[in-house]
Amino acid sequence: MQLNETICAISSPPGQGAVAIVRLSGDSAFEIGNKLIEFPDNKEKSASTIAANSIRFCKIKDGDMLIDEGMAAFFHAPHSYTSEDTIEIYCHGSQYIQQRILETLIKNGARLAKPGEFTLRAFLNGKLDLSQAEGVADLIASGSEAAHRLAINQIKGGFSEEIKMLRDELLHFVTLIELELDFSEEDVEFADREQLYNLIDKIERKLRKLIRSFSYGNAIKNGIPVAIVGKTNVGKSTLLNKLLHEEKAIVSEIAGTTRDFIEDTISLEGITFRFIDTAGIRKTSNEIETIGIERALKKLREAQIVLVMIDANDNQEEIEKSLEFIKAESHINKHILFIINKIDSVINPDLLLHDIKSKINIKGDYYTISAKFGTNIQQLENKLIEIAKQDSPPDSSVIVTNARHFEALQKSHESILRVIEGLDNKLSGDLLSMDIREVLHYLGEITGEITNDEILGNIFKNFCIGK
Amino acid sequence: MQLNETICAISSPPGQGAVAIVRLSGDSAFEIGNKLIEFPDNKEKSASTIAANSIRFCKIKDGDMLIDEGMAAFFHAPHSYTSEDTIEIYCHGSQYIQQRILETLIKNGARLAKPGEFTLRAFLNGKLDLSQAEGVADLIASGSEAAHRLAINQIKGGFSEEIKMLRDELLHFVTLIELELDFSEEDVEFADREQLYNLIDKIERKLRKLIRSFSYGNAIKNGIPVAIVGKTNVGKSTLLNKLLHEEKAIVSEIAGTTRDFIEDTISLEGITFRFIDTAGIRKTSNEIETIGIERALKKLREAQIVLVMIDANDNQEEIEKSLEFIKAESHINKHILFIINKIDSVINPDLLLHDIKSKINIKGDYYTISAKFGTNIQQLENKLIEIAKQDSPPDSSVIVTNARHFEALQKSHESILRVIEGLDNKLSGDLLSMDIREVLHYLGEITGEITNDEILGNIFKNFCIGK
Repeated sequence: MQLNETICAISSPPGQGAVAIVRLSGDSAFEIGNKLIEFPDNKEKSASTIAANSIRFCKIKDGDMLIDEGMAAFFHAPHSYTSEDTIEIYCHGSQYIQQRILETLIKNGARLAKPGEFTLRAFLNGKLDLSQAEGVADLIASGSEAAHRLAINQIKGGFSEEIKMLRDELLHFVTLIELELDFSEEDVEFADREQLYNLIDKIERKLRKLIRSFSYGNAIKNGIPVAIVGKTNVGKSTLLNKLLHEEKAIVSEIAGTTRDFIEDTISLEGITFRFIDTAGIRKTSNEIETIGIERALKKLREAQIVLVMIDANDNQEEIEKSLEFIKAESHINKHILFIINKIDSVINPDLLLHDIKSKINIKGDYYTISAKFGTNIQQLENKLIEIAKQDSPPDSSVIVTNARHFEALQKSHESILRVIEGLDNKLSGDLLSMDIREVLHYLGEITGEITNDEILGNIFKNFCIGK
Repeated sequence: MQLNETICAISSPPGQGAVAIVRLSGDSAFEIGNKLIEFPDNKEKSASTIAANSIRFCKIKDGDMLIDEGMAAFFHAPHSYTSEDTIEIYCHGSQYIQQRILETLIKNGARLAKPGEFTLRAFLNGKLDLSQAEGVADLIASGSEAAHRLAINQIKGGFSEEIKMLRDELLHFVTLIELELDFSEEDVEFADREQLYNLIDKIERKLRKLIRSFSYGNAIKNGIPVAIVGKTNVGKSTLLNKLLHEEKAIVSEIAGTTRDFIEDTISLEGITFRFIDTAGIRKTSNEIETIGIERALKKLREAQIVLVMIDANDNQEEIEKSLEFIKAESHINKHILFIINKIDSVINPDLLLHDIKSKINIKGDYYTISAKFGTNIQQLENKLIEIAKQDSPPDSSVIVTNARHFEALQKSHESILRVIEGLDNKLSGDLLSMDIREVLHYLGEITGEITNDEILGNIFKNFCIGK
């Protein structure tokens, strides 16, 4: 965290394009910039004398060698992203030129920025709080409308403000309580216990609500996990392909945590669903099978929605077998959809549905589809969207999307429960103040009012370079 | 070419990054910008009232929906890249945001730019001539120091100026000659034939020099083609890998024009060599073999340098076979290097070299190497660099890198030879003027003083979008 060093990086996406951005920030930004940037228009002689917030045509040179002709923008501290003197160079997007400019900046005294170091500096210089800085990374990574909206809200600082407000109110009380300790022999109460109780109660409810919002926030950010279970050849892949085909937005295929699970994501009405396909896990020998089942169960536990696929031609025994996974686990808080596939091969689907429903004794929704011919796929999609939306808190409310915030919120909640217990048991002010101080600590970690190098290191290492 | 439409595109490299650039240019750029861009600082109310060449923090919105917070730069016609009103938006580099901003611009009346359309407008509005515009595309694609230097020179306009100067001088003379025609009955000579002859002679020499520079310019731009021939297992791949390993700059592997030829490029002292590996072509059945040999010969013809690899353990018959390709073709203007590989398995390499030299009756350079152990690879590299540099014209001279320019230069050269012939034969002014007009036409095509939609279409279709 040497803030006195001047850092540089390519800020545009990696690769070749029409225009690329090289960013330079720090105390010596103008001094270094002067060595590279030359203005064909002689009136403005150097980077340091160019007006703040202006953008100019310039030559970019390494000594006498012309690297490129481009534009450069000049930002004067503290009116820049990092709050430091900053130059942004917009050059032709050849990789050679990008690399060459970077090398020349480094030769003239700049250092290559670490991932997220510009945003880290913005935080350290008080431009952003920590939660907002994390929102920047989320915003860049957001691939769906819903994830984008949550990240934008986090950057706007609504969540931070809410946390800061709670913290300020608490701070007021803890100060009063600690003041009491100074007058302990006189047995006074500066902090009205009734008011304190009400505040603590309000904060407890607020924290609970925020903690609860995480399951939605996390699902939106990373995609709502949906598991598909069913015997081999029941049509899991066909259904998945059909859903992927129907998709209106970005399709991606990412390797899951284990090789057995290839995860596909689809986007329906701006919400990402992450499909966990458990296909193939039962094909192996006995010992492996156990591991496979273990894994499938683990995946099932993570899923928010479970699609249980049944072949319309299955007999009672086969249906029983398909329900194995579902029965093996408790599925509170999971949405289970029974999907009877291959109805194209059945004469009377309604009768079949009625028959199967009577055999299955598990709460859930039932769909008869033909994955192959696309029959009733739209209904299934509508149901998925409905489930996603039914878990969503009201539009105005703050939603936690960040696992670090979630953890800090949980810890502050634990502490606040101890404060409540303390108040109930008429605990002495010094003990009470310790618990409140803990709440303050954890809440402070979220916005970065309380922080340390390790926390910062962990947050910013996942940023991209140039941000 | 509807210049009245306002165009937009993502100008930064494709993909996700810290910051992306969306460019908007045209008559309605500010009007459309006003609909998306909002300044939290109320003093400056709209895109149209922001000072030219300034860059400001702003909110980017689609109606009430906040898409992003970022920066926007404002350029007023004619002081912009395109010479039109232009806004550049610097947004967070998520693909979702980039796409969303583009969609919103289009919804508000902009149109997605075609490849190179910003540069096309710059040309049509007289900001660049055609040769400079082509330099922009070359600059973005340039992957080596030498290619970069040639592209930068082309953008700087040295080549264009040279062409324009020749053209202006010629134009002066053709005007005088055509004036003579008006006074044809009086038999006057406004254009001094002696002076004209000197000029034409100067231009002819100049054109010849430019045409000759193309083989170097083209090699630098696309890499100097080097073919490696030799029997299977002679060590072609090992040598290639060794050279690649020694490389100081960018390594890339591109699919060649046919599947059989994988082309590797290496960069030595800023010069790109494009290796044509003919490995494996003789392994197939007879009919295919013929096709393979045909292809190898075609590749050989393209090569500027041919490495003929011989196994140090080969007998006379095997050596003869290795020379098959070389003997089959005429190799004027090719540099042939005989490379005796696997000298690590030979007791007296010098003796062997002497022996082989006496057997091979073809002009060329001889190297004894061990590709496996890296012996004498440095010498070979030095030779490659020496050959590349020996073809290079002096630093100050203009080098033609563009096939279109090459063709136009060849055509103008043909016409100028006819002018010389005409002067020698004391051709009448009207016939002389026709040939000179042809020279003017082809030279004008290079800089774009003479152009048409087809020429422009062919040039700009190869640009990237956003430039």
